[in-house]
Amino acid sequence: MSFQNPVFIPGPTNMPEAVRQACYMPTIDHRSPTFGKILHPCLDGVRKVLKSDSAKIFIFPSTGTGGWETALSNSLNSGDKVLAARNGMFSHRWIDMCQRHGLNVTVVETPWGQGLPADKYEAILTADTNHEIKVVLATHNETATGVKSDIAAVRRALDAAGHPALLFVDGVSSIASMDFRFDEWGVDIAVTGSQKGFMLPAGLAILGFSDKAVATSRTATLPRTFFDIADMQKGYDANAFPYTPPVGLMNGLKLSLDMLLDEGLENVIARHHRIAEGVRIAVAAWGLELCAASPDLYSDTVSAIRTPEGFNATDIVTHAANTYDVAFGVGLGEVAGKVFRIGHLGSLTDVMMLSGLATAEMCMVDLGLDIKLGSGVAAAQEYYRTNPATAIKIAA
Amino acid sequence: MSFQNPVFIPGPTNMPEAVRQACYMPTIDHRSPTFGKILHPCLDGVRKVLKSDSAKIFIFPSTGTGGWETALSNSLNSGDKVLAARNGMFSHRWIDMCQRHGLNVTVVETPWGQGLPADKYEAILTADTNHEIKVVLATHNETATGVKSDIAAVRRALDAAGHPALLFVDGVSSIASMDFRFDEWGVDIAVTGSQKGFMLPAGLAILGFSDKAVATSRTATLPRTFFDIADMQKGYDANAFPYTPPVGLMNGLKLSLDMLLDEGLENVIARHHRIAEGVRIAVAAWGLELCAASPDLYSDTVSAIRTPEGFNATDIVTHAANTYDVAFGVGLGEVAGKVFRIGHLGSLTDVMMLSGLATAEMCMVDLGLDIKLGSGVAAAQEYYRTNPATAIKIAA
Amino acid sequence: MSFQNPVFIPGPTNMPEAVRQACYMPTIDHRSPTFGKILHPCLDGVRKVLKSDSAKIFIFPSTGTGGWETALSNSLNSGDKVLAARNGMFSHRWIDMCQRHGLNVTVVETPWGQGLPADKYEAILTADTNHEIKVVLATHNETATGVKSDIAAVRRALDAAGHPALLFVDGVSSIASMDFRFDEWGVDIAVTGSQKGFMLPAGLAILGFSDKAVATSRTATLPRTFFDIADMQKGYDANAFPYTPPVGLMNGLKLSLDMLLDEGLENVIARHHRIAEGVRIAVAAWGLELCAASPDLYSDTVSAIRTPEGFNATDIVTHAANTYDVAFGVGLGEVAGKVFRIGHLGSLTDVMMLSGLATAEMCMVDLGLDIKLGSGVAAAQEYYRTNPATAIKIAA
Amino acid sequence: MSFQNPVFIPGPTNMPEAVRQACYMPTIDHRSPTFGKILHPCLDGVRKVLKSDSAKIFIFPSTGTGGWETALSNSLNSGDKVLAARNGMFSHRWIDMCQRHGLNVTVVETPWGQGLPADKYEAILTADTNHEIKVVLATHNETATGVKSDIAAVRRALDAAGHPALLFVDGVSSIASMDFRFDEWGVDIAVTGSQKGFMLPAGLAILGFSDKAVATSRTATLPRTFFDIADMQKGYDANAFPYTPPVGLMNGLKLSLDMLLDEGLENVIARHHRIAEGVRIAVAAWGLELCAASPDLYSDTVSAIRTPEGFNATDIVTHAANTYDVAFGVGLGEVAGKVFRIGHLGSLTDVMMLSGLATAEMCMVDLGLDIKLGSGVAAAQEYYRTNPATAIKIAA
Repeated sequence: MSFQNPVFIPGPTNMPEAVRQACYMPTIDHRSPTFGKILHPCLDGVRKVLKSDSAKIFIFPSTGTGGWETALSNSLNSGDKVLAARNGMFSHRWIDMCQRHGLNVTVVETPWGQGLPADKYEAILTADTNHEIKVVLATHNETATGVKSDIAAVRRALDAAGHPALLFVDGVSSIASMDFRFDEWGVDIAVTGSQKGFMLPAGLAILGFSDKAVATSRTATLPRTFFDIADMQKGYDANAFPYTPPVGLMNGLKLSLDMLLDEGLENVIARHHRIAEGVRIAVAAWGLELCAASPDLYSDTVSAIRTPEGFNATDIVTHAANTYDVAFGVGLGEVAGKVFRIGHLGSLTDVMMLSGLATAEMCMVDLGLDIKLGSGVAAAQEYYRTNPATAIKIAA
Repeated sequence: MSFQNPVFIPGPTNMPEAVRQACYMPTIDHRSPTFGKILHPCLDGVRKVLKSDSAKIFIFPSTGTGGWETALSNSLNSGDKVLAARNGMFSHRWIDMCQRHGLNVTVVETPWGQGLPADKYEAILTADTNHEIKVVLATHNETATGVKSDIAAVRRALDAAGHPALLFVDGVSSIASMDFRFDEWGVDIAVTGSQKGFMLPAGLAILGFSDKAVATSRTATLPRTFFDIADMQKGYDANAFPYTPPVGLMNGLKLSLDMLLDEGLENVIARHHRIAEGVRIAVAAWGLELCAASPDLYSDTVSAIRTPEGFNATDIVTHAANTYDVAFGVGLGEVAGKVFRIGHLGSLTDVMMLSGLATAEMCMVDLGLDIKLGSGVAAAQEYYRTNPATAIKIAA
Repeated sequence: MSFQNPVFIPGPTNMPEAVRQACYMPTIDHRSPTFGKILHPCLDGVRKVLKSDSAKIFIFPSTGTGGWETALSNSLNSGDKVLAARNGMFSHRWIDMCQRHGLNVTVVETPWGQGLPADKYEAILTADTNHEIKVVLATHNETATGVKSDIAAVRRALDAAGHPALLFVDGVSSIASMDFRFDEWGVDIAVTGSQKGFMLPAGLAILGFSDKAVATSRTATLPRTFFDIADMQKGYDANAFPYTPPVGLMNGLKLSLDMLLDEGLENVIARHHRIAEGVRIAVAAWGLELCAASPDLYSDTVSAIRTPEGFNATDIVTHAANTYDVAFGVGLGEVAGKVFRIGHLGSLTDVMMLSGLATAEMCMVDLGLDIKLGSGVAAAQEYYRTNPATAIKIAA
Repeated sequence: MSFQNPVFIPGPTNMPEAVRQACYMPTIDHRSPTFGKILHPCLDGVRKVLKSDSAKIFIFPSTGTGGWETALSNSLNSGDKVLAARNGMFSHRWIDMCQRHGLNVTVVETPWGQGLPADKYEAILTADTNHEIKVVLATHNETATGVKSDIAAVRRALDAAGHPALLFVDGVSSIASMDFRFDEWGVDIAVTGSQKGFMLPAGLAILGFSDKAVATSRTATLPRTFFDIADMQKGYDANAFPYTPPVGLMNGLKLSLDMLLDEGLENVIARHHRIAEGVRIAVAAWGLELCAASPDLYSDTVSAIRTPEGFNATDIVTHAANTYDVAFGVGLGEVAGKVFRIGHLGSLTDVMMLSGLATAEMCMVDLGLDIKLGSGVAAAQEYYRTNPATAIKIAA
């Protein structure tokens, strides 16, 4: 644990010093008014980051997976129908969770590397004339494949079908990094976590609920206590949690939100896009291809890079860790061994990113791939220097 | 948030500087072998603290409440029968959770201030000749009333009845502070959290499962994913979690375990007892009584102190916060307004405790109670100085 | 090093969490403009704390002792005459430094426990018709005896004698804690350090120079480079130091100054006075006496407490450290073994102070002194609760 | 102050997390035995780093400049003769300090970019038949020019001349990074600071004295108090300082020494050499030259890189700070505007260094220099990957 080099995994991200210090807080009485001064700014700030005026925000001491479970258990009944597409490991896991909770999932199998098929959603929803489908799941950014999907198109599919199903969006690896519009897209539940765009340690599930979703929760019968939003809301109304809150992490979230909103969400999005573009240009310079099938699908938070046939992409990740003390992400599930992933979200500069690209180059050459040292770096350098950041730096 | 005075709440506790620093850790790759070097010592250390040779340990990014839910959802089926006693707010909440998860709870109503009625448990279990009761719940230390119960007696009740029900123990505010014997007492699931005896921030649910409990989990049908121990075990076997683990908190837990085990569990227990005795002697000097009905029930982690009729005990807590920037605990539920609580667990010295007692005295006098300033302090001083600590200091 | 209990030494003080975090800063380029944004607010803030409109402020990576040497070496020539009174260990050491630097010191021997004899200063200065005395030294607060001297009276002595000597004041243990008026008292050089009222670690010598002192420095010939104020000023003018500056400590000083000035200097002074009064009332309740001869001399930052004849006061300090892990100060020089000292400056609340008093009581009883446990605590409690703080808390 | 990118200045260096945390220590009583447990390991560890069996080690709350003054003022008398060579800004400053302290310096003017002229030293010493020269100054590593000098050759010059002068070595930017041999080279006083190879914040002057230097100090008459080694030694003998010590910084030094000695000094040296070689190979790939005149002079802690005629090298440093938030060093004195400097010492990996090289390339291209993006990076990558580190990582 030398902590010298940045990490290049798709979360947890590198953390700003000030955010880390805010998390590192001595004990306060979580039942005192002081906690309310941390809690409410967090709720308000998350709402702004979701671009919502009215979403109810819930924060649980948990992770994104707990957030998925919160969404399901507060809105559904055993046996309810859910529509979802599987185009990567994280959409797969949410589907799996549905099935384990006794839900009836219509799965649209989608090639890994493709986005969510809004057209197929529309067809299925249109055919569901009895409106048996209660919820549509949508993974905004497939962290396994580096594929961004078009949530606005999913909303259009629902609207075109005149279907009342709720729209649940997994924004774990997109929210606070990429464009996300809770109100405009008609999202009913958005799920994210602390350890991605919010640049915090893992430990918080963060959700936004539409009024419709909150209303639905009142009659949902899947068992829940820890993840119950009614208990949580009752706690918030008294400046509290229904159990001991993760005070330090929320103190960090409060600061992180201040930083993101001070920078401006559009600047945050532009910053992530700029860093990501440099990575993609480097990948092209290496003669490699992304897992994402087309540019409209490219994620600005993570790139999954295909390596040549017969080469085990996971070796790059292992070699980078062992030889250079640098962390990249392995391929998961269907693309295990076929891709390695570079995370490029959170607290990350062009300068830091160049060191990650340089490391990837050394690893690939070390492992016998036909890559020219410095080629990707040079391409990214040219992009970064000619596309100056208006806000490349996260103030701390 | 001046952080100058210690807190005297029954958790989260004051944190040792070194533990806080260990939590405050830069990002590492949680899929790298480095994480295994944090994870496995945590599992091994918790097992030792539970005084178990073979318990399977599970740690979730959650709280004690999530730990309760883990226990229930991994062992029970909807409609299953559970036996529990209600003698305070926390036993009440676990019963409430059972009911919300569709369990059929036989509740033994017990006066707040009393311990768990092992005799009544035995009668009910003996009468349950069909062994329909699947689980017996036992709150080892009622944080609301400062009452410790006799878990060995509950085990004897089960044994005397020849009953195969599983024994689940809430040790949230006892484990790592008071005597706890997983193996000897035949505990099947023990539940605790990070923010009490482990002296960490809230954010971890920590559980031990007996082999029998693990076996039962294989057929339990209450829905669960986030809290599923099979997924978690599969993760551990690969040095990982099934989702992003709370790395910093676990790094803190690793250090906290080292500190506790280096000090020696018996010394840890003696240290808590010594601090608690000083508090109780001060309470007696004030002419006040504890909520706990008799000395065998006195908790060594929290004292709930009854104030005179007609006096709102909560005023002490509010006044202490507003006037002296000191945190005590309010009374909850049935004893709201009737007691205030002094937490005396975790990283706390006699010297720190004396400042808490001195503050309580000032508050009581300020609010018109007939207390002599310095009386409780003097009594505690005499106890502390004539009962020297062999291990009063937590090494940092 | 458990860091659990507060320290009660006359500096370094307990540190506010936020100040400590500000010191704990990653490396920046100290030659970049960023450093100027730390440096200049420090200079401006110190000037305000000195209550000066025009003093030139100098900060060296050193200690108060280095500050003394800075004062002497930037203003004097070998053989120059200096007037000083010796009434404690710290005034003694400054005199000793003068002698080692070849200065000719007229020493007014003054009983330890007395303040500076302004009348004798006046007589000597009046007799010095040739104005051979170049500098008058005045220790504002004798940390060894807990004696505060009347600097305004020393200024009046100079003025009454019509003497042009420079007035140098050691304010190490008074500035930022007790009333100090650079301009009003006509101070020419004030010396302090980081580890007292500024609540920082040791490591900074902090000085204010009057225009007259700066002018004198131009011709002073005592050798100096590290402590040369002309080099330092040239550095400041370029946002720099003449060598590598202690960036983190200065970042902490910047925050400390913000906190002190936000609280208001009069509130800071009142806060220290209130805490000190509680200590003195406890001492009286113990039946003991202060080293300081009369109330007008009582220091609000440190109390030196005389113990009975035949008792070694240092034993209290040793016993407190060994038995209770609490730090008090020993007696120094003439009063070694005769007094022990309680520091009550910096980040310290009434609640913390009560734990110090309770500890002192236990120690004294443990060591056989005829002290009633709780007696001093009760007296201080009564004072603190009936003299509520308007600003007892340091915001963090 | 985003603290995201590493710094590439020749000190203060990037700091290991654990060292930073060790510095960030709550207040302890510096007069307690606890301080001795920090102090003595520091003294012992520094001695080992100096490769000395018997040097007396002194640590002052100061900087390298204060260390120079300590060396001079503890060994010389006004008017004493000193021999020194001026081959850069730091050797110049030490000479200047000598002159300001009334010493008579024979200065051997040496081109900036050249090492110390041992042959000229020998000639001068041989001619000094009366042994009027009391001290020979030698700057081991000229931080301004990136030039390492041959201290063993200086020692041979002294020996060849049969001259008894003391040998004082400025090792501020070499000790703990480059090969340094106090005993073997017959060094009498070695001077360094905390913020270079020790990877700490600035704030400590660290010196080693030979027995001969200690003996000389007893009769040296230059005035000194703060920097007096006899006072300091007396303090050490009582586990103390003669004034308030910088406890946190020394706690950090203790850890830093443990890390360096655990790694092994030869590994530390090899690690610095490897990082430096990568930089030099990149510089060659850019078609630029170092200020250091020949390979035997190349410093392993800092490289001063000459830019083409007519180009202001300082622009690179300003542009890097403003555009990329990266810190390099400017040219100083004679080489101001002609060189920019890359610091490559302390806590720095190959991966971090590559980001510095990539940034330098972007800056040079942005400013119109004829540099190929990626060219230096590629050269360094090839070097780093084919010269694997046996110990590239600093354990934390």
